[in-house]
Amino acid sequence: MRLASFNARGRSSYGAVVGDGIVDLRLRLPPRYPTLVDLLRGDGLAEARAMIVDVRPDFPLAEAELLPPLLAPEKILCVGVNYANRHKDFGDAEPPRHPSIFFRHPGSLVGHGQKLHRPVVSEQLDFEGEIALVIGRGGRRIARERALEHVVGYMLCNEGTVRDWLRHGKFNVTQGKNFDASGSIGPWLTTADEIDPAKPMHLTVKVNGVTRQDDTTASMVFSFADLIVYMTTFMTLRPGDIIVTGTPVKIGAKEGAPEWLKPGDVVELHVPELGSLRNEVVAEK
Amino acid sequence: MRLASFNARGRSSYGAVVGDGIVDLRLRLPPRYPTLVDLLRGDGLAEARAMIVDVRPDFPLAEAELLPPLLAPEKILCVGVNYANRHKDFGDAEPPRHPSIFFRHPGSLVGHGQKLHRPVVSEQLDFEGEIALVIGRGGRRIARERALEHVVGYMLCNEGTVRDWLRHGKFNVTQGKNFDASGSIGPWLTTADEIDPAKPMHLTVKVNGVTRQDDTTASMVFSFADLIVYMTTFMTLRPGDIIVTGTPVKIGAKEGAPEWLKPGDVVELHVPELGSLRNEVVAEK
Repeated sequence: MRLASFNARGRSSYGAVVGDGIVDLRLRLPPRYPTLVDLLRGDGLAEARAMIVDVRPDFPLAEAELLPPLLAPEKILCVGVNYANRHKDFGDAEPPRHPSIFFRHPGSLVGHGQKLHRPVVSEQLDFEGEIALVIGRGGRRIARERALEHVVGYMLCNEGTVRDWLRHGKFNVTQGKNFDASGSIGPWLTTADEIDPAKPMHLTVKVNGVTRQDDTTASMVFSFADLIVYMTTFMTLRPGDIIVTGTPVKIGAKEGAPEWLKPGDVVELHVPELGSLRNEVVAEK
Repeated sequence: MRLASFNARGRSSYGAVVGDGIVDLRLRLPPRYPTLVDLLRGDGLAEARAMIVDVRPDFPLAEAELLPPLLAPEKILCVGVNYANRHKDFGDAEPPRHPSIFFRHPGSLVGHGQKLHRPVVSEQLDFEGEIALVIGRGGRRIARERALEHVVGYMLCNEGTVRDWLRHGKFNVTQGKNFDASGSIGPWLTTADEIDPAKPMHLTVKVNGVTRQDDTTASMVFSFADLIVYMTTFMTLRPGDIIVTGTPVKIGAKEGAPEWLKPGDVVELHVPELGSLRNEVVAEK
């Protein structure tokens, strides 16, 4: 199932993407599920599945403005430096012993097709293509062999970064990772039953049609399961929590001057199982 | 007004602390305000004030289990190294140019009187007494001279830290700041009209009755207004967002071996205008 949140026909809702259309689930499900996060917290996925059997879409996908699939998760956790050789970008000979983790706030991410904002105060907006997993069943001290049972699905995330604000503070990358509308997430949540966990996902990122990232999850230092095990050593994960799992090394980066995103640029992430996440950059006003 | 969230008589609610009692506001206010965060987002403070005029408390404060006043804020932002001389603890001669900022998740903080958890995986649980401000009116690029108008009130926060997990990741303190139940917040939200902004607040922290922190907000490197101005340079603050504003230098610290909190210890923060936030430490199971 592909679950999206959207604005369409004058209202906000969520539903299932079926072919080129959307089945509005909020209309069909009980009012205790006003958002997709509530659906996950209420364990309502089976009810949602039942609603789309033999149902025709309510309107074309093209009519909807897609939003971040999960509008108000409790946590958006991001992982730094998690693909093979990426640690060398930071002058480290060895891969890290533990994941680097930081939070983003929901307003820092827009949906598929919405505009990325190049900030007024910086010209250094950069893209980072990543795969995000979504927690369906919460937990603490989750065992490795059961970790993927807690994942309800996957999304793409352009974990957009404002480079010159990353190290404003002595200890944390918070600022450079939390500019309003500096990244994107979506286009929808693809449920885990559609993903073969034994097959690496293949992520490509193009900027203005030129491939800038191309790698698979086989290159990850910490696997999806590793991240869940590690994070739940110290904190409880809840349904709807998002873990953005790190970005691969860039192609053509650090040869000469860095090329930052500028208004008019288009960033497109693609994973065959998860679809495409495409956003144009505009200058923030 | 002093606004608290609590469990009492078998249910969860929120209300105003009046003398030694609580006026249950959730009972009296419209259902569109199910929590204090919703009350702030819905701009319902004047309605709440009207409800407590000439009303007798519903039950004694002592009957309630206090919870974190704001149970599900969008953001809990914390500021590192923000009191005079604290940067010297980190080997820096000069105060920082920008605030260091990180996030905590709501489950990392318990309410007044609830137990702090010394983790299974670490013996290095430490306290940090701080003043937290709460955003009432959201905004982006808030002007300095109007910044305090966006603050609806203040609380105490023991921004508890697990020291040996602070630098697990290369770039961020996330892990050591996000252990479940490692800190506390409360006892209630004191609304800004009860605070004289021209008068520094005087914070003391005692562990087992011994004073370990004693300073005033006059020693802050970045004032409340500075923090709001800086943070809204890059992101939108929303009603109910919490900013935990940094901890003073410790008394008696770094002389010999550090003393970590252990089960049975009691940490008590006090600011005359904000009350006392007291928690006992237990061993996490």
